[in-house]
Amino acid sequence: MNRAVDFFFDFMSPYSYLASTRVEAMAARAEATVRWRPAYLPGILKASGNIAPVSVLPKAAYIVRDVERWAKQLDLPPVKYPVVFPFNSALANRTALVVSQQGAPFVPYCRALFRALWIDGVDGGNADVLAQVLKDLDLDAGAVLLEANGEAARAALKENTDEAAARGAFGVPSFFVGDELFVGNDRLDFVEQALKALPG
Amino acid sequence: MNRAVDFFFDFMSPYSYLASTRVEAMAARAEATVRWRPAYLPGILKASGNIAPVSVLPKAAYIVRDVERWAKQLDLPPVKYPVVFPFNSALANRTALVVSQQGAPFVPYCRALFRALWIDGVDGGNADVLAQVLKDLDLDAGAVLLEANGEAARAALKENTDEAAARGAFGVPSFFVGDELFVGNDRLDFVEQALKALPG
Repeated sequence: MNRAVDFFFDFMSPYSYLASTRVEAMAARAEATVRWRPAYLPGILKASGNIAPVSVLPKAAYIVRDVERWAKQLDLPPVKYPVVFPFNSALANRTALVVSQQGAPFVPYCRALFRALWIDGVDGGNADVLAQVLKDLDLDAGAVLLEANGEAARAALKENTDEAAARGAFGVPSFFVGDELFVGNDRLDFVEQALKALPG
Repeated sequence: MNRAVDFFFDFMSPYSYLASTRVEAMAARAEATVRWRPAYLPGILKASGNIAPVSVLPKAAYIVRDVERWAKQLDLPPVKYPVVFPFNSALANRTALVVSQQGAPFVPYCRALFRALWIDGVDGGNADVLAQVLKDLDLDAGAVLLEANGEAARAALKENTDEAAARGAFGVPSFFVGDELFVGNDRLDFVEQALKALPG
């Protein structure tokens, strides 16, 4: 398949969670592949001159309601915000990159971690919590976390973050079909149209 | 009809323009009425602690593309940004309030002004331009503009702006169904669902 979409996300982002539940089904309809790209939202915000959605109080309150509505619309379980929010998502994002580099089941881990955070409401900044999600997938939690704290994993997360910003992202989730940027869970229809317009 | 939605908008907002083209059809499907409420976006941003979308450069560039996509999706003519952008929309918003208070055709004027701005790309900060749109609808441009520069019109715009912010808005377009806020042209489906859930 030549058709591909880059899906830049951060585990701390509820709209990234929503997108993660249906991006693969969308891509299947378009006969396209999804490149899951963990990135660090604060780095994208800084590079683009944007501010965090949660820093605007009425916006933060609205997002809680909007995400609830989307979960209902998509027939997902009720959303539970992570017990600490916002949390420092750097380690969580790096564990996903390490799992990917190790050839372990990357997308299932991303999905399991998103579910743990946004349905169970666990603390994504806590290494023990991440270890449990890894163990539940029979992954070597100790090895992944050790690697995730290393320089290579830090550099890999920075690389994804910098690439997203350099291509024009100013938040997450951000989707790229070639040079075309689409922002948000609510633009997956446009992403699907853009993919279908490509040669198959 | 007991079902009603408050539609807070500013003529300088492209997503308000997009919403203006279909909010009445949406309300008709839900057997509801639309209360068109011109408001002053900079006032809402200031009250909520939000920043202007165009102040984030990659976001401003993205919005241009996103609005183009929406116009195509909705079978609208190609969008042309107002020749001066952003422009000071205070007078434009106040003319609409005056037209409303005079019992003149308010919604047709709002739609005509949105089209002049976002299809023809006229300068919405220019009184002569506003006068032409008024004249094209056989309205008394001189009288409307005189009134629009008065204290009552200024107070009325501030009242709408303050009400939107007090109810939780942090930008435009903002829709309220009772206490429930919905933000953006891309949430009209949710607005329709909320209206239909009310007693008819």
